[in-house]
Order: sequence, then C-alpha cells, then structure tokens
Amino acid sequence: MYELGVVYRNIRRADAAVTGDLGRFGSATVHEAMGRVGLLQPYMRPIFSGAQVSGTAVTVLLHPGDNWMMHVVAEQIRPGDIVVAAITAPCTDGYFGDLLATSLQARGALGLVIDAGVRDVKTLKEMNFPVWSKAISSKGTIKATVGSVNIPVVCAGMLITPGDVIVADDDGVVCVPAANAEKTRDAAAAREANEGEKRAKLASGILGLDMYKMREPLEKAGLRYID
Amino acid sequence: MYELGVVYRNIRRADAAVTGDLGRFGSATVHEAMGRVGLLQPYMRPIFSGAQVSGTAVTVLLHPGDNWMMHVVAEQIRPGDIVVAAITAPCTDGYFGDLLATSLQARGALGLVIDAGVRDVKTLKEMNFPVWSKAISSKGTIKATVGSVNIPVVCAGMLITPGDVIVADDDGVVCVPAANAEKTRDAAAAREANEGEKRAKLASGILGLDMYKMREPLEKAGLRYID
Amino acid sequence: MYELGVVYRNIRRADAAVTGDLGRFGSATVHEAMGRVGLLQPYMRPIFSGAQVSGTAVTVLLHPGDNWMMHVVAEQIRPGDIVVAAITAPCTDGYFGDLLATSLQARGALGLVIDAGVRDVKTLKEMNFPVWSKAISSKGTIKATVGSVNIPVVCAGMLITPGDVIVADDDGVVCVPAANAEKTRDAAAAREANEGEKRAKLASGILGLDMYKMREPLEKAGLRYID
Amino acid sequence: MYELGVVYRNIRRADAAVTGDLGRFGSATVHEAMGRVGLLQPYMRPIFSGAQVSGTAVTVLLHPGDNWMMHVVAEQIRPGDIVVAAITAPCTDGYFGDLLATSLQARGALGLVIDAGVRDVKTLKEMNFPVWSKAISSKGTIKATVGSVNIPVVCAGMLITPGDVIVADDDGVVCVPAANAEKTRDAAAAREANEGEKRAKLASGILGLDMYKMREPLEKAGLRYID
Amino acid sequence: MYELGVVYRNIRRADAAVTGDLGRFGSATVHEAMGRVGLLQPYMRPIFSGAQVSGTAVTVLLHPGDNWMMHVVAEQIRPGDIVVAAITAPCTDGYFGDLLATSLQARGALGLVIDAGVRDVKTLKEMNFPVWSKAISSKGTIKATVGSVNIPVVCAGMLITPGDVIVADDDGVVCVPAANAEKTRDAAAAREANEGEKRAKLASGILGLDMYKMREPLEKAGLRYID
Amino acid sequence: MYELGVVYRNIRRADAAVTGDLGRFGSATVHEAMGRVGLLQPYMRPIFSGAQVSGTAVTVLLHPGDNWMMHVVAEQIRPGDIVVAAITAPCTDGYFGDLLATSLQARGALGLVIDAGVRDVKTLKEMNFPVWSKAISSKGTIKATVGSVNIPVVCAGMLITPGDVIVADDDGVVCVPAANAEKTRDAAAAREANEGEKRAKLASGILGLDMYKMREPLEKAGLRYID
Repeated sequence: MYELGVVYRNIRRADAAVTGDLGRFGSATVHEAMGRVGLLQPYMRPIFSGAQVSGTAVTVLLHPGDNWMMHVVAEQIRPGDIVVAAITAPCTDGYFGDLLATSLQARGALGLVIDAGVRDVKTLKEMNFPVWSKAISSKGTIKATVGSVNIPVVCAGMLITPGDVIVADDDGVVCVPAANAEKTRDAAAAREANEGEKRAKLASGILGLDMYKMREPLEKAGLRYID
Repeated sequence: MYELGVVYRNIRRADAAVTGDLGRFGSATVHEAMGRVGLLQPYMRPIFSGAQVSGTAVTVLLHPGDNWMMHVVAEQIRPGDIVVAAITAPCTDGYFGDLLATSLQARGALGLVIDAGVRDVKTLKEMNFPVWSKAISSKGTIKATVGSVNIPVVCAGMLITPGDVIVADDDGVVCVPAANAEKTRDAAAAREANEGEKRAKLASGILGLDMYKMREPLEKAGLRYID
Repeated sequence: MYELGVVYRNIRRADAAVTGDLGRFGSATVHEAMGRVGLLQPYMRPIFSGAQVSGTAVTVLLHPGDNWMMHVVAEQIRPGDIVVAAITAPCTDGYFGDLLATSLQARGALGLVIDAGVRDVKTLKEMNFPVWSKAISSKGTIKATVGSVNIPVVCAGMLITPGDVIVADDDGVVCVPAANAEKTRDAAAAREANEGEKRAKLASGILGLDMYKMREPLEKAGLRYID
Repeated sequence: MYELGVVYRNIRRADAAVTGDLGRFGSATVHEAMGRVGLLQPYMRPIFSGAQVSGTAVTVLLHPGDNWMMHVVAEQIRPGDIVVAAITAPCTDGYFGDLLATSLQARGALGLVIDAGVRDVKTLKEMNFPVWSKAISSKGTIKATVGSVNIPVVCAGMLITPGDVIVADDDGVVCVPAANAEKTRDAAAAREANEGEKRAKLASGILGLDMYKMREPLEKAGLRYID
Repeated sequence: MYELGVVYRNIRRADAAVTGDLGRFGSATVHEAMGRVGLLQPYMRPIFSGAQVSGTAVTVLLHPGDNWMMHVVAEQIRPGDIVVAAITAPCTDGYFGDLLATSLQARGALGLVIDAGVRDVKTLKEMNFPVWSKAISSKGTIKATVGSVNIPVVCAGMLITPGDVIVADDDGVVCVPAANAEKTRDAAAAREANEGEKRAKLASGILGLDMYKMREPLEKAGLRYID
Repeated sequence: MYELGVVYRNIRRADAAVTGDLGRFGSATVHEAMGRVGLLQPYMRPIFSGAQVSGTAVTVLLHPGDNWMMHVVAEQIRPGDIVVAAITAPCTDGYFGDLLATSLQARGALGLVIDAGVRDVKTLKEMNFPVWSKAISSKGTIKATVGSVNIPVVCAGMLITPGDVIVADDDGVVCVPAANAEKTRDAAAAREANEGEKRAKLASGILGLDMYKMREPLEKAGLRYID
C-alpha cells in the first residue's frame, strides 16, 4: 500500500552514463539481459512510433481523474529523468497534454510513462516528447486530491523505485533497478557482441537449427520428421 | 430504446460557422469547455493519424453485421455533415469501405464515426476520408434489416442527437449538443486565450506550482516534503 | 487437439500464380469472395501499415513463452510462404524479433502471422518484413518444449491447414483453403470487375440507393420517411 | 449529452399492472416480444441468482467515483420503481452498499441496475435486494459533484427514459419504453401461449425440424446430408 | 476454414465406457493426463456450479446471431452425446434456451458447450441440463443461414472433431481426441492411483518439498534461504 | 523489479488480535477506514461465495505456468496466514488445486489470494478453503523455475509486503500494511459505531438527504428541482 501526501526530494539516481548505455540497447535486449524480468505490461504503447529513450525514474502517484500531482512532480525533475506515473485505481482519462509536456521538457524530462491516458498527442509528437501510455483520451482531469512523489509505485504491473532506469521504445517499457544497472548494461553488451555475426549467418541462409546446434536436443525432446 | 424503420429528413443542424470554430479547438479543449462531458469512449480511434474535423451529426442506427442503412443515410447528408453510426448490439464487422466512402464524400460528408469496424483503411487514408471506429476488420456485412436514420443514437456510450456538433481528432471524439454549440465555442475560446502565455512561461522553466499558485492549497491538503 | 512433436516436410501448397492473384485483391475482397468466411479475428493487426501480401501457409505450433519451434519451421519455408504461428494457450510474449526475421526472409518467407507478440518492430519495419500479431512485447521466450510444424492449427480463431493461401493487409488476415483458391480468385475478380464503374457513379453523386435499386426492397421492409 | 444538476420530480411511469405482467415473462421473452431490441449489454450480471423483477425506471446520472446523487434519487422513488444508475465515464467502484439498499428498499424500490460496481453483496442478498451491475468492488466513493435524476440516461449501452419498464432476471436486463409496454406485454403473452404445447412435443422427442417445418427451407438454403 | 452447408450423419464416437470413465476423473486430471493440452479457453464457464459430465462430441457450426442449425444438430444426437457449438465470428447472443434444452435432453444429450451466450439459465438449472458458455444473454437469434453439423470446429480456441470426448466440470472443458481416449483414461487412472496417499501425507503436515524431494533440485536451481 | 531465488524465513507479522478484528469489519469497511486505498483490483473474485477471512500475508512470486514455489511457500506458513501469490507476467493457468490446499490448510493457512487461476474448485469449496483468484482453469503448471517467497510483491495491482493484513470477502480483497493495522482497526470500529442507528433511520424511511444534511450543500453545488 502507498504512503500518501509525501514528496521525497532526494532520491538516488542510477549512474547517468550507464543509463544512457542501456537506452542504446533497447527494451528487448535489456529485458533479456535482466533474465526476462522488469517489463511493464504490453498494453503500454508509445503514442508515436520511433522514439527510443532511457532515463532515471521520478515517480508520481495520482488518483483516478486527478492530475494535480503532475505539477508537483515537475519540480522534482532533473535533466535526464523520465516521469513514471501510477494511478491508485484503473483510469483512462487524459492526465497529460501539451502544456504539461512543455513544463516537463523545460525541466529536462526525456519522456513520460503513465498507466492511464494522455491527450494532445499530435502536439506531443511535434514537440518530440515521447509518452508510453495505456490510452489516448480527450477526457480532462481535476486537481483536488494529493498523491505522492518519488515513492515506489506499481505502474502497469511493475514495481518501480525512484532512481531506477527506464528503457522505452516501440517494443515496450522496461525498468532496471538502479542497483542492477551496471550489471545489466554489461550483460546487454555481451548479448549484442556477436549479434552482427549471427545476423550475417542467418541472412546467408544458415539455419538457427545449425547455428545454435539445436538438432540434437530437439531429437532428444522427441521431435520427429515425417515425409 | 430505439424507433426502428424511420428516416427523419428534416433535422436542425448546429450553426455552420460555430461548428467550424469548434473543430479548430480540437476535442480536448472542447471537452473541457463543456465541463468535461460529451466524450465518446476512448476505444474510438482514428484509422489514420493527423485528421482534425468538425461537422454536424447525421445519425444512422444499424443492426449487427448489416450495413444496409449506410446507403439510406447517404441520401440525408448535406455538405459539412459527419455520419455517426450506432449498432444495436456490439459488433466489430467492417461496415464501411472505399465505395461507401466515395459516396459519402461525394455528398459532402467530412468523416464517419462508427461504433463498429471499417475496412479498406489504406484507400480511405489515400482519399483523406477520416474515420473514427472501434475496430478495423475485413469482415463484410449483409443488407437485410432496416434500422433508422436521424434518430437520437447511443454511439460509444454517448447519446448523440442529429444536428449536434461532432469534433474529432487524434485525441478522440466529442459531441456538442446543437443548443450548446455557441456557448461551448465561447468557453473554448476563453480557455485558449491565454494558453500561449502559459506555454511560454512553462517553456521558460516556470513551474505550474507557481504559475497556478498551487503551493498553498497543496500544503492545506496535507502535502509534505521530505528531504 | 493437436499432434505434438511432429514436423511434416511435404505439404501441398496452393498454386503460386493464384496465390499471387489473391494478394492483389486484398483481404476484404477475398473475404467477400469466399462468402464472408476465413477471416482471422480482427485483433490481429499489422506491426506497420501499408504492407499487402499473399503466400502459402507453413504452420507452426508453439507453447506459451517458448519459441523453440520457430527455428524448426524456418527450415520448412519455401520462397513465397507465409509463416502462421499458433500457441497452445493465450500468450502475448515477444516470440519473434529481427534475428528470426533475417532467417525467415533469407529462406524466402514473405511475412509472419502470429497469435502472440513480437518485438524489434522498428527493425522489422526497416527490413520490410511484415508481421500480423496480437501484441507487441519486449518479453522474450525460452527454448524448452517441442511443438509441431505443418499440422493444421487454430490461429486467432481460424483453422489453417498447411498450404492454404494467406492474404494479409491493413484490413486483416484471411485464409483461403488451397482447394478453394482458384474459385475464390475468380469470384474476387468478378467482384472487382465493375468496381471502377461503381466508384465513378458514386463519386458523381449517384446514390447506392439508386445504383443498387434498394428503394423498393427498403420500402417493403417497412422503412418510412418522415419530413 | 446530458443535462447536469437537475432533478425531475414528475415522470410518467408505465402502467403498474402491465409492468408487473412483463416481469412474469422474464427478460428473454420480453426481449423477443419487442423485436429483439432493448437489452442492456450482457456484462450486466445479477449479484445473486434467482431474482426476477420488473419495475418502472427512475434514473440517476453519477460521476466516476462519486455516489452523491444516490441519495438524491432515493427521494424520487415510488413503490414499484427500479433505480437505473448511469455513470458519465466507465467506472467499477462500489457505489452502493447495505445502507443505501436499506434506504431504497424502505422507499419501495424493487432493485437497482447500475453500470458500475456495488459492495456488501452478502448483506444485499440477505436483504433480498437484487442488483444488476458491471462489477463488485469494495472501493468506496466520495460525495462531491452533482449529476442528475430522472433524465434519459445511457446505461450499459441502452437509452433508458424515466418511467420505462425494466425487466431483469438471471438472463439480463431489458428496457421496455413506457409507450410500448402494453403492446409488448401482449406480444409476450402471445409468444408464451403455446410454449407449453411446444415444450411437451419437444420433450416427447419430436424435433424442432419437424415441429417448425424447417426441413424444406433448410434444403432450399442448400443444406446437404452426407452419410 | 469451414465446409458450410453440410450435415455428416455418421461419425465415429469414442468408446462409451471409456468416455464415462474420463468424466469421473474431471477436467483437471484429464488435462494433465493428456500432457496439458486439450483445454478450451478458461472464459468458458458453467451456467451453474456442481455439474460434472463427459460425453461424445456432436458439433455444430453456427453464424453470429443465428441459431437455425441448433435444430439440425438435435436430430444427430445419440444418448451420451454433448453438443459442441462454434460460431463463425465472436458473438455473445443467447443461442439456446429452455425449449431447445428440452429437445436436446429428450434426444439424450448430456450437455452443451457453446462459444457464445445462452439464456433461460434458471430453467436450465432446474432441468439439470448443464451448459458451458462464454456469456449469458437474453438476446435471441434468428434462423436464416445454414452452417454445418459434425464437421471439425474450433470452439473457444480448441479444435474439436466429432466423436471426441468432452469432459466438463466447474474447472472448465477439456477435449480428448477419440483416438487417445483409452490411453488418456489409463494415464488419468495412474495419476489418481496414489492421490489418496499423497493427500493423507499432506493433511498430516508433511510438506510437498519433502514428499516430492524438491529440496535438492531447488537448491541446484539457486534458491537461497535468508533468516 | 523483483529479487529472484530467495526465501525470507523471518517476517514481521501484524498483530494477530488486530488482524482478527479487521476481518470482522469486512473489506469494504476496512477499505474506507484506510482512506479508500489498499484494494486489489476488482477482477479478483472468490471461487465460492460467503467466505470472510483475515490473515497475515506470506507472499510468493511465481513464473507464468510454473507453480514450483507454491511448495516452497507452504513451509513458511504459520497458523493464521493467508498466502498471497503474484506472477511475473499475466497468466490464467490453474496453479493450485486440492492437494496443495490440503497442504496449506494443514499448515494453518486460512486462504489463498492469487493473481492467476486455480482448479479443483468444487473440492476447495467442500474443504472450505477460500481462494480469491483472477480465473478458474483446469490448465496445470510445471515445476521448473525458482521465484521467491516473502518478498514484497504486486498482486492484482497492489503492493503487498509480507506480514501485512489481508482482509477478503465477497466484495474483494484489501491489504492493510502491518504498521497501519491498529490505526485502521480503530478507524473501522469508529465507522461502524453508529451504523446500526443509521440503518434503523433509513429503514424507517428517513432519507440520507436529511440524515446527512445534504440538501444545503447540494443546492450550493447547483442542484435544481424541476416539477
């Protein structure tokens, strides 16, 4: 359960260089590098395609239909952050539009991940401010109830602690705990090291069956070929 | 419950100039200007992005898997109308394709809002005929049962009366009752009047917390800062 | 129920020329030409818009969270095939990414239809390798359990037999049984024969009501006009 | 779109005797008798099984997460009414529990139909106060914003006018417009008149194929028998 | 894709004694005994709890909103059959009520599995005619289009061939291919053989960890205990 | 993100007497007493109605389709606990049946809350072992991958820490943090103190409008009565 009505000003952010490296690998590679955990549910989709970002999470907990705390979290942003917004109950309202995006971008935020809806998506695309959300909705929100900023939140089924690394692209959104960032970066780099070679082999027509030496284990597992 | 088997030829359309003005504000601003009502459910999505239109509603009620009445409504269209199609039970079939779009466009329709599916979406985009729908589906429909034209219908959860103003863009679809169109237009204009100034302030790094004088009410609401 | 652990090497593919013809008509016309059957459920969406392909189905049955058999099916592909992937239980994991796409493309596959998720969608688009899927997800899969290749499978609610024709575009995915391919091609051609003329008439403002002579049957069905 | 902030004190209720008759037929028969329209979406389910009621609709429009107007509608209830509650946007909160049920029951209400959630369902069952709802949820609501009472509302996809007849049982909820109540009652009675005879024939093993004389039309429709 | 307009009169039913045996094990045990395949999707729920049946499948393919073929399948029922109904496109209409149940029961059917809706559920319970369905809905259907009887169908995601064994209870619905029925029965019997002993041990407080000797493999898999 | 492969043996459980008190209030009252937070998503439903329990949470994190850790958590149960099971990705498989229930009950567990499926529900009801789950499914699981026990988990959208109080009944499942248990118990008691008096007044026909003195605030909020 959540602590309500608090703003934590000091959070320990993951290392900036490592955070940047993780973004270059993309969400699928990072997710593999962590042992296939850390992925937010796949209903979280980018509002426009092509963006690929990484940043440190500043979190905000909002109430259904109420975006008051978006203004509170704006003050806590440092350049390189990504705002992660969770709601206390399922909601598809449009919590966020071009004015808030202008404010977040001015504060140095690189994007928004929100388990609810956003609006002004045409303008957000023109501003190149990427958002991953559950919905797009014109429905506005009120400013009546306080939530919290920079507490651990559950966003799209994933627990996200302030300072964690967020990696987001067209494939989805992954959260890397700050403590695991460097280890994950190294594992991702190792994964990618020989991808070029593999791709070249596969492009030449060599089968994964042979490249990965799968024929024997498949036979052991009982696979039979029938002519 | 619906009156079946009737076509109302004479409907009172909202003023054309006001209808046009509302379209320029977009669905999010218009929705706010009406007091946050009038939005069709957010599952209604444009089949291609970037369109922003407004028009007066001509309505059609169809049966599941039957698009016969689409031809009946075509005759009732006047330039500047948007066709609003409701179905008597949930259905995702593709009621509408490029031939019908050709007909509607020839009659002066500016778009279609349909609580079901459409097809030929590639061609519709080339024709620049915007559609907001619940689904995209190749599944065709039959022509067997009569519905109605220009009766009040429920489309995507919203009651729409013939002649109402429809405002639709990438954020969704809003319905403005004809009687409220002028008032809503003025309220939307007032909302937008100082948006440019606000945007400039936020872009300069001024926080919404200060610009909207939220610090005191947030403190009163119990918000605490922790270092 | 499915036969597990088998790979059928020899399947009877639909005629290549007919398969190509069907693709040019698109999924909506083909679906109509078959008597409005054969459509996979409309939740199957292209990962990028604009692709329109047809090919002969090679099928693969996979287990939830396990993409091992994707490497097995790769070997069975012949140029002009489309891979159709079914899962033994609902799953949204990302079974397929750029490496596998490189392999399938090298073997001559024209696309993938998968009742689950895919990833690396940005790269897949750059490679122009079209995919129709239920989800996009970074979540990777393991390689632990054998399924089958080239058995009849149920994909997105439709029974698909190896060698059937798959027609896929922005409107969805249709399956034409190999035995019906020629007949369906002819029926589709007949449908399209006078589409240009119809389109011209409708574009000139002639109503479908008159062009299709619907006024009398509508009146018989009880439709009344009210002024 | 809805008129907000109004309570209509005087509504024209359907005839009480006809309303009672309709309840005895049940929702399926009444739905058929109206020509297969009037059914609320099937996600509306009873919180306990076995209840079968009919009553005249008093309507209330509520905001998401706000049940203030439930107290306002309570005053407008007359014995034999059923409260029909619509929400301005999708919500599953528990708007209604045992205290409100006590109040509604004391006023003579026979049940509640609500396009949202309810709670205290164990107690509601003990009180024998039937509810048809979209959800069951412990989540409470606030009392902050006014809606309306006795305006036409859209509940679970159906337009309901105050005074209409509501028929609800384990099969679902149907709305009969007050103006059609008598006609529908008569049609339902005609439907049921020879049901007993039909049931006896079918129970004796006579097939519907013969009883309804379907063999010839099926053959004409192309049905073939294969041994 | 389906063959339309045909009724196969002769199907090979699984052995009656084996079919009966399978029913006594229940769907969960049978599903395990087949290697964890054969389960219809879990959205298929019983309309009343407590029924546990097995029978041989007679299949029927219906069109959305059209139950004409239910009367055709009735004639093909033999005592001990379970009717399995598939629809050519998703639909929640109430295809089946007390009259049809009377007919099916008179013909010897033990139940119905339908990937759509049913109605008259209160009466069906009184008749003790069990149904597993996707929905409950008052919405009736028409009789206009022919489908097929006793062709292989896809019901709730599972391919079902006429004559297969259907096992259904409160946990769901499983399909056992006729050819595998005896083998599955034996495997299920073996599974249950020592269940009583296991249950007694677990009831005495012995842990599965010890009974199944899991401590060593868990440690090998890396599990650590922290005090 | 989760720590994998660990079992915490020592957790601080909420006070047993307070835990028991909270159960008597039920989930709706407790949810209100906490300020309307702490509720698991309403898709969590009891597998049989009428159970009302409270207990201290022991948590288990499982992988999709793998119930190995259920045996590990069994050992960590103390009398009065409720097992809370989270899955690393959405899954509806039947993780839990009568054998595991026998084991958990023997260890003193009062129930199970699982964000996935269960089976053997008929037997679980006979054993009076209550379960709140997302699904019921015959589909079994494997035992291949380690998760964790007694780490904080996200179950049905709510963060649950080992030792927290779980209150579950027909209305849903609420989590009370151990640190807030006493305060919440007192707030719940205060809420209930004068419920009997309120109920009596409402039962006598007194309106909530008068009992709660709502007429003036409603008028101020703009509510108008129309005759």
